[in-house]
Amino acid sequence: MARGIFITLEGADGCGKSTQAELLAEVLLARGREVVRLREPGGTPISEKIRALLLDSANAEMVPEAELLLYEASRAQLTRQVIEPALERGAVVLCDRYYDSTYAYQAGGRGLDETIVRQSNVLGSCGRVPDRTLVLDLDPAIGYARATAGGADRMEAEGLAFQERVRAAYLRLADEEPARVRVVDAAGEKDAVTARLASALEDLL
Amino acid sequence: MARGIFITLEGADGCGKSTQAELLAEVLLARGREVVRLREPGGTPISEKIRALLLDSANAEMVPEAELLLYEASRAQLTRQVIEPALERGAVVLCDRYYDSTYAYQAGGRGLDETIVRQSNVLGSCGRVPDRTLVLDLDPAIGYARATAGGADRMEAEGLAFQERVRAAYLRLADEEPARVRVVDAAGEKDAVTARLASALEDLL
Repeated sequence: MARGIFITLEGADGCGKSTQAELLAEVLLARGREVVRLREPGGTPISEKIRALLLDSANAEMVPEAELLLYEASRAQLTRQVIEPALERGAVVLCDRYYDSTYAYQAGGRGLDETIVRQSNVLGSCGRVPDRTLVLDLDPAIGYARATAGGADRMEAEGLAFQERVRAAYLRLADEEPARVRVVDAAGEKDAVTARLASALEDLL
Repeated sequence: MARGIFITLEGADGCGKSTQAELLAEVLLARGREVVRLREPGGTPISEKIRALLLDSANAEMVPEAELLLYEASRAQLTRQVIEPALERGAVVLCDRYYDSTYAYQAGGRGLDETIVRQSNVLGSCGRVPDRTLVLDLDPAIGYARATAGGADRMEAEGLAFQERVRAAYLRLADEEPARVRVVDAAGEKDAVTARLASALEDLL
């Protein structure tokens, strides 16, 4: 069985996830752990090729079902090729987005069928469940303003109502799986947020 | 509801599927039908890009789960973008391989978990079920010799025992779903095989 710890960071756009992933990695390194930082979609050569397909604006006719399955294919490759071996050697895997993002954005944000998204998530993660999922929670209006300050990408272009649906989906997950999914207040000073995140991991370390 | 007819052609390597697809299309055209011929994986610009990923030998580290989900992503795009619109305008869609190939090759041939393959197939086909599936059945030793005469591709390189498992999987499907899946003897003269295929479609035309 895996001896490592699998942590995923989640949240709507502009919640500060990337910054916090970096700061949290420092905390874990200071505890003497090997930390493997990953970002979805991507993280392996094959996953990066799939990411390029997903982000290429030449593929504008992509149907939602194909998009969903491409995310899952990228995830399956990352899970088997990188996450599982890292966990087996005892590392802490810190992944910026994982299958809860697919739930929050595709089922929550876009309104894809929930059962289909959940089944796809099981397939794409090869049944792997994070040990802890930290949801960085922020007023969507603040996050959205931050995320779109430098221009909006395709997801961000969906608008504020979309971000509100994404947030609601994350909060539903935390209700459903309180042992795994923890909501952490992402407002305020960076270091204070990092301290809250670390404290939500304390029992696992 | 769709007014067209969705026909899929299946069979192990070297069973004569491509030749028969062409001959069968002629028969259907002679009946005054619009015939849309497709080949999996592929058939749309996005599906062809996924096909290229699947066939690129640079991607040798691809894990079976990622491969499966890429096939399904390609299928979802083809189904929504081409198959469903064609059926809606009343065409006969003649598809060289569809989800039964995934079952026969991945679950039957390679031994992937059957439940996972079946669930993936539902997702990739967006729930679309062929009206009739014709399995071209041939002694695997004959088909295999034919298929490898010009050099073996990755699938064909799996060997004869693999082709025998693929055939057995097709025969299981025909047992499970006799109304949809018909096994047609693929031995003998080309025109005789075409006549058998056409006769297995008679009730739909």
